[in-house]
Amino acid sequence: MKAEILSVGTELLLGEIVDTNAAFLASELAQLGIDLHFVSQVGDNRARLAETIGRAFQRADIVIITGGLGPTEDDLTREAISDALGEEMVVQPDLAETLKEMFRKFGREMPPSNIKQATLIPSAQVLPNPIGTAPGWWVERDGHIIIAMPGVPHEMKRMWAEQALPRLQVAAHTGVIATRTLKTIGIGESHAEEAVRPLIRSTNPTLATYAKPDGVHLRMAAKAPDRETALRMLDELEAKVRELIGPYIYGVDNETPSEAVGKLLKARGLSVATMESCSGGLLASMITDTPGSSAYFRGGIIAYTAEMKISFGVDPAVIERVGTVDRETALAMARAARERLGADIGLATTGVAGPDAIEGKPVGTLHVALDFHGKTLADGRQVSTTRTEFKRRAAMDALFLLWKALKES
Amino acid sequence: MKAEILSVGTELLLGEIVDTNAAFLASELAQLGIDLHFVSQVGDNRARLAETIGRAFQRADIVIITGGLGPTEDDLTREAISDALGEEMVVQPDLAETLKEMFRKFGREMPPSNIKQATLIPSAQVLPNPIGTAPGWWVERDGHIIIAMPGVPHEMKRMWAEQALPRLQVAAHTGVIATRTLKTIGIGESHAEEAVRPLIRSTNPTLATYAKPDGVHLRMAAKAPDRETALRMLDELEAKVRELIGPYIYGVDNETPSEAVGKLLKARGLSVATMESCSGGLLASMITDTPGSSAYFRGGIIAYTAEMKISFGVDPAVIERVGTVDRETALAMARAARERLGADIGLATTGVAGPDAIEGKPVGTLHVALDFHGKTLADGRQVSTTRTEFKRRAAMDALFLLWKALKES
Repeated sequence: MKAEILSVGTELLLGEIVDTNAAFLASELAQLGIDLHFVSQVGDNRARLAETIGRAFQRADIVIITGGLGPTEDDLTREAISDALGEEMVVQPDLAETLKEMFRKFGREMPPSNIKQATLIPSAQVLPNPIGTAPGWWVERDGHIIIAMPGVPHEMKRMWAEQALPRLQVAAHTGVIATRTLKTIGIGESHAEEAVRPLIRSTNPTLATYAKPDGVHLRMAAKAPDRETALRMLDELEAKVRELIGPYIYGVDNETPSEAVGKLLKARGLSVATMESCSGGLLASMITDTPGSSAYFRGGIIAYTAEMKISFGVDPAVIERVGTVDRETALAMARAARERLGADIGLATTGVAGPDAIEGKPVGTLHVALDFHGKTLADGRQVSTTRTEFKRRAAMDALFLLWKALKES
Repeated sequence: MKAEILSVGTELLLGEIVDTNAAFLASELAQLGIDLHFVSQVGDNRARLAETIGRAFQRADIVIITGGLGPTEDDLTREAISDALGEEMVVQPDLAETLKEMFRKFGREMPPSNIKQATLIPSAQVLPNPIGTAPGWWVERDGHIIIAMPGVPHEMKRMWAEQALPRLQVAAHTGVIATRTLKTIGIGESHAEEAVRPLIRSTNPTLATYAKPDGVHLRMAAKAPDRETALRMLDELEAKVRELIGPYIYGVDNETPSEAVGKLLKARGLSVATMESCSGGLLASMITDTPGSSAYFRGGIIAYTAEMKISFGVDPAVIERVGTVDRETALAMARAARERLGADIGLATTGVAGPDAIEGKPVGTLHVALDFHGKTLADGRQVSTTRTEFKRRAAMDALFLLWKALKES
């Protein structure tokens, strides 16, 4: 099975947007075991688009096109497929009705130009788009398949997962591939790999490690005739992985550190409050990214200066003795956050985000600390990076310190 | 002039990396006024690569290739160009010497396979690579140009800027294109376009509007024989644009709202403090993304609950009367932030980020407010979006309220 991807849109050729759709689909095809031979970006030009589609249709078994399905004159993917295959676009009354209904729901009249979104050619079936006006096309002819989907990434991804992928798995007899990612923290990539080495040699299911900004990921993939079998294979592999490095795993798939921490706080009925220096509000912002965080996030303080820290309850004697950037100051800030904001746990960051050193401490110095009803934990390191990335790591280190404390509580 | 871009590497076709090189080069070509007709990603396969290069060489005047210039067997760009053009690769003694010297510098022996990085074909000249082992190729034949550069982005970008671009400007008689973006806020795209309509008709310099997350951008581009003339043309156009919508322009090129606000605060010697509800720390985090913000950011409070707001100085009578999500509450929070943290200006957000309504106010309700030594400003709207995007807009609205107040002060 050979595949080819075409991304349509002049904005791609002007460099105004990066083609993330192609990378997403390429990775999906790789997981299906389908070989991808070419990826092309083509502008909104009917002749060039038809030429490219025609060539792809001949040399590949599967052609996946994204973009160019909108209602305007610049949206020419349907027209170009029709040209390449020598077929005629015909308005489908039921599609036209669905489209008009969608506009009515938003209290608007459908512009006449939108009618082309309700067309098909004889070789095409419709791929419904529940979150946009552009339905996709599934074209099958002479043993070749064309899948045309919208260019808007979230519309494309949903249509791919719900409509195109299941059909493709049947049509291309790929079997089903299921994947799952276990996210770890507190263990380096080489140690993680070392720990699960016997499992990495397996070819189905597969296991691979990736170093990511939120820790080392262990990605598992299983191929089977049906989804149930694939999921069972993943369950078995996950159990073995957890036996080897379970204590480091904080989340599965898209679960963020903030969500993992939120889940534990909720389960244990605990609340948290923050006092931030170097992370400048980002730690609180990460915590509050999780829906429902108001149930356990008591509040936060951003205190850059020594006076501000003291005014919110940090012991002046500590700052007098060790300065504003120190492990002890971080601990005093965590305690003050807990006491001042009336939470079970206080969490704090202090460090030197740059551009200048502070009190003789170099740029990149980072301390995070936690106070859990008087029991304390702290962590520190030297980080050499940009200012915004420094803030991100400070917030992340604090979140992981909290996660560790909650796991062990 | 028609151009085509080829990105080489199987990792692109596996979806392991996103092709940012193509987007960078596409934007460069757009600025040069060179039409880009196709972009393709091709794997490390000699026959497919040669076929693609051959087709591109015929239908385009300029073919830009990145990747596949390394020393391994998988690196096949040189071989494929030679195949496509029917020319022979020959080792260049001087290049070989430079390469060996580079290895000696790092105290290593050059592996024999690296010798292919010292080859050229008769139609090719070398593009030196000061920061890597892979030199590029500049190929000129039959009025067509092939530029082959490494795939590592920072090596490619440097070779492009220092070697390829200057030659291309001469060979393609492109002249120089300079661009500048004026960033506005408080004016919608159609109003902005309306206001500058007479200027939009111009073809050199050009002016175009774009709606972006941080406001409407006005992008100017000027083409001239030399950079000085192009910049002067931009200056003249900018003056005209500023005459028409000057009060809405907050920044130029990469300047962020946070930087624009920081500049004004510094210039006026004023300080700011925040009290955030629905933006959950993101407003403070945006402010502190700007280096040097500790000079004017006094500190911040994240207060989700009514008790927390009251404990930091919000008048309980206000919350009693209008609840926690209201214009008046936002104003009381701004005042409390200013007084409690001892700043010139207090800035506040309150709203309903979701998933649930609060006190009968629907998800998406948003209020921002500011208190500047007792003079107040407030803004409110209904925003229907995701939780994280809601937080972003709340923080952005607050920043722009601050910007407006500072401009008028």
